[in-house]
Amino acid sequence: MASESQNWVLVVTARTPTNIAVIKYWGKRDEKLILPVNDSISVTLDPDHLCTTTTVAVSPSFDQDRMWLNGKEISLSGGRFQSCLREIRSRASDVEDKEKGIKISKEDWEKLHVHIASYNNFPTAAGLASSAAGFACFVFSLAKLMNVNEDQSKLSAIARQGSGSACRSLFGGFVKWIMGKDKNGSDSLAVQLADEEHWDDLVILVAVVSSRQKETSSTSGMRESVETSLLLQHRAKEVVPKRILQMEEAIKNRDFASFAQLTCADSNQFHAVCLDTSPPIFYMNDTSHKIISIVEKWNRSEGTPQVAYTFDAGPNAVLIARNRKVAALLLQRLLFYFPPNSDSDLNSYIHGDKSILQDAGLAGLKDVEALPPPPEIKDNIPSQKYRGDVSYFICTRPGRGPVYLSDESQALLNPETGLPK
Amino acid sequence: MASESQNWVLVVTARTPTNIAVIKYWGKRDEKLILPVNDSISVTLDPDHLCTTTTVAVSPSFDQDRMWLNGKEISLSGGRFQSCLREIRSRASDVEDKEKGIKISKEDWEKLHVHIASYNNFPTAAGLASSAAGFACFVFSLAKLMNVNEDQSKLSAIARQGSGSACRSLFGGFVKWIMGKDKNGSDSLAVQLADEEHWDDLVILVAVVSSRQKETSSTSGMRESVETSLLLQHRAKEVVPKRILQMEEAIKNRDFASFAQLTCADSNQFHAVCLDTSPPIFYMNDTSHKIISIVEKWNRSEGTPQVAYTFDAGPNAVLIARNRKVAALLLQRLLFYFPPNSDSDLNSYIHGDKSILQDAGLAGLKDVEALPPPPEIKDNIPSQKYRGDVSYFICTRPGRGPVYLSDESQALLNPETGLPK
Repeated sequence: MASESQNWVLVVTARTPTNIAVIKYWGKRDEKLILPVNDSISVTLDPDHLCTTTTVAVSPSFDQDRMWLNGKEISLSGGRFQSCLREIRSRASDVEDKEKGIKISKEDWEKLHVHIASYNNFPTAAGLASSAAGFACFVFSLAKLMNVNEDQSKLSAIARQGSGSACRSLFGGFVKWIMGKDKNGSDSLAVQLADEEHWDDLVILVAVVSSRQKETSSTSGMRESVETSLLLQHRAKEVVPKRILQMEEAIKNRDFASFAQLTCADSNQFHAVCLDTSPPIFYMNDTSHKIISIVEKWNRSEGTPQVAYTFDAGPNAVLIARNRKVAALLLQRLLFYFPPNSDSDLNSYIHGDKSILQDAGLAGLKDVEALPPPPEIKDNIPSQKYRGDVSYFICTRPGRGPVYLSDESQALLNPETGLPK
Repeated sequence: MASESQNWVLVVTARTPTNIAVIKYWGKRDEKLILPVNDSISVTLDPDHLCTTTTVAVSPSFDQDRMWLNGKEISLSGGRFQSCLREIRSRASDVEDKEKGIKISKEDWEKLHVHIASYNNFPTAAGLASSAAGFACFVFSLAKLMNVNEDQSKLSAIARQGSGSACRSLFGGFVKWIMGKDKNGSDSLAVQLADEEHWDDLVILVAVVSSRQKETSSTSGMRESVETSLLLQHRAKEVVPKRILQMEEAIKNRDFASFAQLTCADSNQFHAVCLDTSPPIFYMNDTSHKIISIVEKWNRSEGTPQVAYTFDAGPNAVLIARNRKVAALLLQRLLFYFPPNSDSDLNSYIHGDKSILQDAGLAGLKDVEALPPPPEIKDNIPSQKYRGDVSYFICTRPGRGPVYLSDESQALLNPETGLPK
């Protein structure tokens, strides 16, 4: 290490989005390398509303690898962190920062330790794919720090070894995770199908659903599905390959009707496989079912889909509206059934792009209370309200892929000490 | 009609059990004849606790076919009633009652009208297979009245045209509905696998679950599944045939571990197919899920299954305990989580065989309140109670098939007028 002093700290900060699968990943053919049993397709969510920010630092003064998540130190000893670290380190190149007088050669990286600080701008435990954004940012920021000369798809194959769906967070817009064929996993990686500008009418509303059940982790859930579900292999081999082709077409043509039909059907089939697992896994609850039924009824009454729904390994609904006008009407419907608790104001009930409230003509709680029942239920029994069953909503849209933040003020580690700010 | 007067009324009364499928029927290959896409197997429930009683009457004074269900006149014009009536009438034989001076020849039956009164000793709308017991009793009692000389399996093929699962209610104990191959449905009928004495250790607890959602009827639900689920045919062709063989073995050998594993897995897979339907069908709710999780946790902690669960087209849980001791422990667990509302007493909360309360050591509400948490959840968070989520329980067991009631006092029609008593 030909550096003038041992006191330097080199820092890189990056921001990486979450993503939501519209053709689902459920089941690994290789547990260790995280190789899936089928391709999957996702939409990247706008990092302005849902993202992970990660700062990585290297310094000869660090005596071990350390990591902080949301300000709290966590262990890096897990196999998944170690896999990503090892893969990135093995591809490291020479780094030189003349201004700071730093010179790191390829071989030095094996001896140098890193500090990593990561922060999610959304609740980590709320089932919002925090591990996808987290591992994507982990790999993306370390790759920059260590001057890894690989394209985004190659990096995605490394992020995949941290968390399968993380590979899809290396790109913005619409992303396909190709399952690949190689035993070593080298061809199991993400590619961009279209960027976030391609279909920018879409508006995404996430309903964060209150849950009283402890959920099965997706890692153990999908292991149990692979071992016990008699439907999973049929889905992976016979159903998904056709859906992947159809979904690629739907995205290419901005064909919302097909996009919505495929998205909803594939979410439901993923949950069907969970139910076919022994013991059965339930991720959706009565509130999730209610949201599906609101959307299905509305879509049916309109004759053509207005909104698609999809649910990951938890009860939260991700609702994709065909455009902003539809999103405003959707929000009205959702708030009619799921009004905020009287002690929370509307502003804290809608996160992300709050301007959707204006579009929906909702300035305050009074406007919510005055919402009429959706016309499509007119003939039915006076509708029940489900106050308290949704914790909050997030309004967002398809978004861009990872970016580096050059502004040092956004770093999570102190550039002098390499410790959390 | 060589009868001495036109004022006679000939009456037959019968009682027919309900049944619960342990390998499920879901999907028709012929809508009109009600021919299924796979075999199914059921357990007949004790008619002392869950049954339909039907009185049928014929008289030259009746000027049309009429029917009363639970005391209320209903229309007989539906295709399913008409199919059963037509099939039975076409097989009618001469009837002679010398005592009453009645003589009806084979040909007379085409001109004579019938009155039918039917009564369920359990709530009709509670999702407890009332149509199965109802159509079985309809066919069974009319067959006796009209002196139809067919064996029970042939009658089951007629009842099948009223409601598919009705064919399995023509026998007690353990029953298989063979899907058959003939286009005309003549070989799609029920056979008894074992009578109710064969495995009389089993105790059945039904949890009637409160529901706020309107449910999809099983008729339209299974039509939509056949049309839209990409998993249904795979289930029917690849999964069920093997399970049928395994279930027959399990029943033959009274092998509770296999019986329970198959029963639970098949119930879950049926609901998985419902979820894979477009729009998705949800029959189970959060309470159903909670009951499954209680049973799964207990079975796991015991190392070998103690209780099997199965759910039909609704949220009610049918729980099959390996023996009476296990059933008492099961009731303790269920009442711990689902205590009765304080305004209902224990006696009206447990229907059917109430003596299970003594076996469980529960003399009153105080004993319920004093129940400790099940030992298998000891390490977990203090358990939540779900008071009010179960409407009531029914304790029953495998039971006998249809019987005729010769005691006229049990008839639902007045033997003088042929009208409801």
